[in-house]
Amino acid sequence: MRIGFIGVGTMGEPMAASLLKAGHSVAVLAHRNRAPVERLLAQGASETTAAAALAAQVELLFTCLPNDAAVEQVLTGPEGVLAGAERPTGQPSLVIVDCSTIAPATSQRLAEQARARGAELLDAPISGGQAGAIAGTLAVMVGGSPAAYQRALPALQAVGRSITHVGPNGAALAVKLGNNLVVAAELVAIAEALALAKASGVDTAVAQRIMAASTARSYILNERVPGTMLTGNLAPAFRLELLRKDLGLALEHGMALGVPMFATAEVHQLYTQAQGLGKGALDSTAIVQLYEEALGQSLATAADADDADQPDA
Amino acid sequence: MRIGFIGVGTMGEPMAASLLKAGHSVAVLAHRNRAPVERLLAQGASETTAAAALAAQVELLFTCLPNDAAVEQVLTGPEGVLAGAERPTGQPSLVIVDCSTIAPATSQRLAEQARARGAELLDAPISGGQAGAIAGTLAVMVGGSPAAYQRALPALQAVGRSITHVGPNGAALAVKLGNNLVVAAELVAIAEALALAKASGVDTAVAQRIMAASTARSYILNERVPGTMLTGNLAPAFRLELLRKDLGLALEHGMALGVPMFATAEVHQLYTQAQGLGKGALDSTAIVQLYEEALGQSLATAADADDADQPDA
Repeated sequence: MRIGFIGVGTMGEPMAASLLKAGHSVAVLAHRNRAPVERLLAQGASETTAAAALAAQVELLFTCLPNDAAVEQVLTGPEGVLAGAERPTGQPSLVIVDCSTIAPATSQRLAEQARARGAELLDAPISGGQAGAIAGTLAVMVGGSPAAYQRALPALQAVGRSITHVGPNGAALAVKLGNNLVVAAELVAIAEALALAKASGVDTAVAQRIMAASTARSYILNERVPGTMLTGNLAPAFRLELLRKDLGLALEHGMALGVPMFATAEVHQLYTQAQGLGKGALDSTAIVQLYEEALGQSLATAADADDADQPDA
Repeated sequence: MRIGFIGVGTMGEPMAASLLKAGHSVAVLAHRNRAPVERLLAQGASETTAAAALAAQVELLFTCLPNDAAVEQVLTGPEGVLAGAERPTGQPSLVIVDCSTIAPATSQRLAEQARARGAELLDAPISGGQAGAIAGTLAVMVGGSPAAYQRALPALQAVGRSITHVGPNGAALAVKLGNNLVVAAELVAIAEALALAKASGVDTAVAQRIMAASTARSYILNERVPGTMLTGNLAPAFRLELLRKDLGLALEHGMALGVPMFATAEVHQLYTQAQGLGKGALDSTAIVQLYEEALGQSLATAADADDADQPDA
């Protein structure tokens, strides 16, 4: 299939490489950051300098961009994708596959604008990180018309292992935001549980080990907390400012739909506070610092955590 | 070992049975509810009519009671455990193993009162449910002196599979409350994520399936939500009013120690609201009804959830 790709960053570059590997013809949009473009050209991609011209020559167009404004501009700008989206009668319409995490409402509005030009837009947020993108094992949730989904499916199967059609436009973004609000609430609740344990004279590694074997167990508690909150190593795997952005999008979406968002609102406020205190570029687990600063002590495990406190039986 | 047991209810009866099976001599306190007492007598237990007399004849005494007031009364009442706790010089002191989930501060105060009579008290909250108690596979967290812990260990190994000495008096209760506050925050956040999905036109079973394979995965989301929130079957496995009680204990404990409890406070308010609306005897997952009532629709999965929305790849 002739496929265009806009946004060959951390996630986009390995996804475009997977499409090439699967035998698709891939054209990428030119970009000031030459390195990823040059690497893809070496793997057989072609390059085009305007989004409208790129859209005119492909059947399927991926966008993989950081935020609402970037997606809006690349689609609706004067030389943007939609300016090259119209097709002569009888020719199949352009399908735009937007992998960015943006507001469901923005995606729905852009889908309307695409339809006005005879094109279709799918929201297709991805989960699995850069490692998943490189391995071609991403989970992709897709919102939009079943017909557009079927046309995009062969390409999606080249970048991901689990592809799910979730519902109409914006539906996949709603699920992605729901996933991330649950993650954020877990991080806050775990920080409170560890702070309560520490203030009660319990080593946080002991508390984590017990909870990780009990009903509080989760991916976040069992796999993310030990290497972050318990060590004090808060180098970013997923930046705090990105999780805060997603919480804001979830909150706005819930407000628009009349969904009460008690936990989401509270957790968004805490992440906003943490970002205001300069922690935006740290890992999202750095929310624990709000509690550490209030307690005046670290919640990283004590040096002697591995001695006598192992389970005896 | 000569062991006493007070509170042979849902959890206590199978625990006392495990102690008998392991060859310990078990004396139970008489109780108006004859059935569990008679069953234990048939397995070789003896019966005593006053807590003080029971305490006088054993080395180790388990209490397994519903709340702070019940534990306080059975220990410090006129014919209570502490009235029979003193030992002649040279004889080993009485060790009280309290498996109830109560306030850490109450447990610490009772431990002081026990010490004043020459006895020791351990807080030993349990995790694993009635099935774990019957199978003898409970997880037991223990707070209190290392010496008392060592004396109780052989008996604890007869009732549980994972026994952990967590720290000083009240420490084990702090970890248990931390575990349960994380569980409650997850239930609230999951209800918000499912409500957001539903309001966006996504079947909640599809949303659950995607999140259960992504970073929001947890025991609660993957193993508790499908049979409860997604079916509308809210028959109690763990009653909402008990989780609300634990949230209140966690909040009070955090307040006393100067620990910020943003999520715990919010979630406690939501559980208080749900209990006020008459949901206390339902399962703790019934918190989802607050969201269903606000949306005016059920979040149980649609009848047609199993058709075309399975992952395609």
